[in-house]
Parts: sequence; C-alpha cells; structure tokens
Amino acid sequence: MRVFSTSDIANSKDRFRKNLINSLHGFKSANLVGTQNSTGSTNLALFTQVFHLGATPPLVGMIVRPHEVPRHTLENILATHSYTLNHIQEQFFVEAHHTSARWEGSEFEGVGLSAVYSDQVKAPYVAESAVQIGMEYREHQTLKINNTVLVVGEVIEIRVPDGIVAEDGYLDLEAAGTITATGLDGYHTTEALGRLTYAKPTHKPERLV
Amino acid sequence: MRVFSTSDIANSKDRFRKNLINSLHGFKSANLVGTQNSTGSTNLALFTQVFHLGATPPLVGMIVRPHEVPRHTLENILATHSYTLNHIQEQFFVEAHHTSARWEGSEFEGVGLSAVYSDQVKAPYVAESAVQIGMEYREHQTLKINNTVLVVGEVIEIRVPDGIVAEDGYLDLEAAGTITATGLDGYHTTEALGRLTYAKPTHKPERLV
Repeated sequence: MRVFSTSDIANSKDRFRKNLINSLHGFKSANLVGTQNSTGSTNLALFTQVFHLGATPPLVGMIVRPHEVPRHTLENILATHSYTLNHIQEQFFVEAHHTSARWEGSEFEGVGLSAVYSDQVKAPYVAESAVQIGMEYREHQTLKINNTVLVVGEVIEIRVPDGIVAEDGYLDLEAAGTITATGLDGYHTTEALGRLTYAKPTHKPERLV
Repeated sequence: MRVFSTSDIANSKDRFRKNLINSLHGFKSANLVGTQNSTGSTNLALFTQVFHLGATPPLVGMIVRPHEVPRHTLENILATHSYTLNHIQEQFFVEAHHTSARWEGSEFEGVGLSAVYSDQVKAPYVAESAVQIGMEYREHQTLKINNTVLVVGEVIEIRVPDGIVAEDGYLDLEAAGTITATGLDGYHTTEALGRLTYAKPTHKPERLV
C-alpha cells in the first residue's frame, strides 16, 4: 500500500498533485456543456463536476473552477440562463477532450461537432450526443474556501434514445454508449454488473431482473 | 428519440421521476463514507454525489440529501470533523449497496464489511476497499433551493495500492478495481479507452503512452 500524508500531498509537484487529487474520488460523469452568448455565438466545454441535487424539482449542480480561463460557459449561462448537458460516447471522446483547448472561435467548429437546437432550450445541444439535457439556470454562488462556483440548474428537457428508458424511469446509459472519465484525461467504457433491489436489513440485495 | 418536457417530468410518477433524474447526468463515483460518533459507534453509507473542488488545498465536495433519514453521516462529520471515502470494488458492491438499508446498529456489522483505522484519521476506513481517502471537515452549508447540504472536506490521507499511481500522479482506478454507478441502483465495471494528451488547438489529442 502507498500512503500519502498531508505533507506528502502539499509537497508534491503541482502537476502530480493536480492529477492525483483529480483522480481521487472515483469515476466521473463527463458532460459537454453547450451554451451561447447573447449574440448567438456558441461555446462547448467539457465538465466532470456535475452532480444530482434533487428530483422534485429536477435539479443538477455543477462546479466551475476559478482559474479555468476563459470561463465562457459561466458567462453565457449568466447572460442567457440556458445551457445543455450532453453525454459523450466513444465515437467522439477525442473531440470532446479537444474542446478544452483554447479555441479562438466556437469549440463546435474547432473540434468538428454539430450544434442542434430544440424549441424549448436556447442553448445548443451536441447533435452527436445520444443523451441531451436542457437546463435552465436557477442560482449560483462562489464558495469562499477556494473561489469555485457552484451553478444550480433545473432540468427542462430530456432527449434520449427510445430504448434506454426502463419502465421505472432508470436510464441504461451503458446502452446509450455514455462513457465515464477519470482524473484530467482518462476515459472508459463500462460493463454492467447489474441493478440491485432496494436495500433492506432482512436480506441481501439481489440483481433486478 | 424520446423527449421529456418540463410537464412530462413534473407529471411522472414519483418513483419514475426519481429514477430518471438520478440517472440523468451520467456515470457517478460510488464511495462508502465511513464515520463514527463521539462515543466511537461506527457508521457506513454509500454516496454518489462526491466531486472534486480543488487540488491546492486538496478539497472534495459531497452532497447530503435532506430526506435521507437517518442522517448519521452528517451528524457524525459535524461532531468529529472526520470521515473517510472508500472506493467500491466488484467483490463487495452488493454489501456496499446493502449499507443503505435502515440498520439498527453499525452498517459495518450489518453488511459484513470491516473497519480499519489509521493514526492520522479518527473515522474508520473500509478494510476491503483498495482506495481509501481520509477527510477532515472544513465547512458545510444548506442550499436554500432544496435544503440539500453541501459538505466540503480536505484530503488529509490517501491510501492506495502501490501499482496504481502513475509517475504524473494519475491514479489507475480501473486497475484498482473501482466501480462506477448509475441511477439509484446500477453498478458497472470499466474498460479503458485511454488517457489523452493535453488539448491544443493545433492538433487532435492522442493517446498517452
């Protein structure tokens, strides 16, 4: 076993610490966040700090890092109150990663992904993405501890392939081809272990059939 | 394509909406959070809303849901300022899921996992877990929008298998056997697509070797 203490972490090189701490808490969702500014110029950025906040109302949280220059995503969300979350599949994970380069114009054109629009949502969806979520800005706040910004949005539209919605509402993201991320640059497909029954003290959970 | 509008989401049955919205944003980290109360009684709970907040200092955020009765994890963190994050492997993912039943005593005993302690961290680690992270409470706040609680902690110890730490600090979580979760009850192993090079506008990212 390798053990890192507080001082090991603090004294490690910046790049080492950044990779280590970004890898630490486990597999992450990887969403391309689509926005546009008030004049309609589009922006696309990869976010791995997106998380469930509640189902009623349907709220999703997202962390925007302070030193991510240029922070067009946050500026666009605050200006238009509209953004989209778009899952990434194996077919375009290299293009998705490429959005994090410093592009002069729109990342859509830069990396070769296509914007597509819905009547319900101002911001662009990623046409190539199997799972597309339309979001409306609700609130944001800066966390004093390190100046990261927590953005809270409400889900206002969900566009998914027909076959992945289970009768009970569960989405088979693996069937949709959604991938998962580790650290700052690692990507993975998945293989299902299965869904488990609701947990009760009286017996071990079993696989749902 | 299947499209859910705001009213489709609002008018769906509670269970359907809960499964759908919890599945929505993608694959999630799955961590067993180990705590103990001021008299040393241990508690273990599965959390899938854990996310990176920053590397310097090394901060991790976690969302605690308001209606998760009994909220022993939050009470214990506030009482002792200590908690651990423990990754889940295929060998004990059923036991991990089982921690969410309403146990009378400690979930460790209820599901059959073992507590192990370090000199640096008051809270118990899960002995079976390959990746163990010791956390110290920094701050928390209740989000007014839906009364969820954001807990921010600092990483004070990292215990991982020797072989999974890359030279640049990246952790090979797949090699550690860490699994990922979807929705409220789905679990998955992973298969690496690879790490990609730092993104620049001048050329497509390539696989790191």
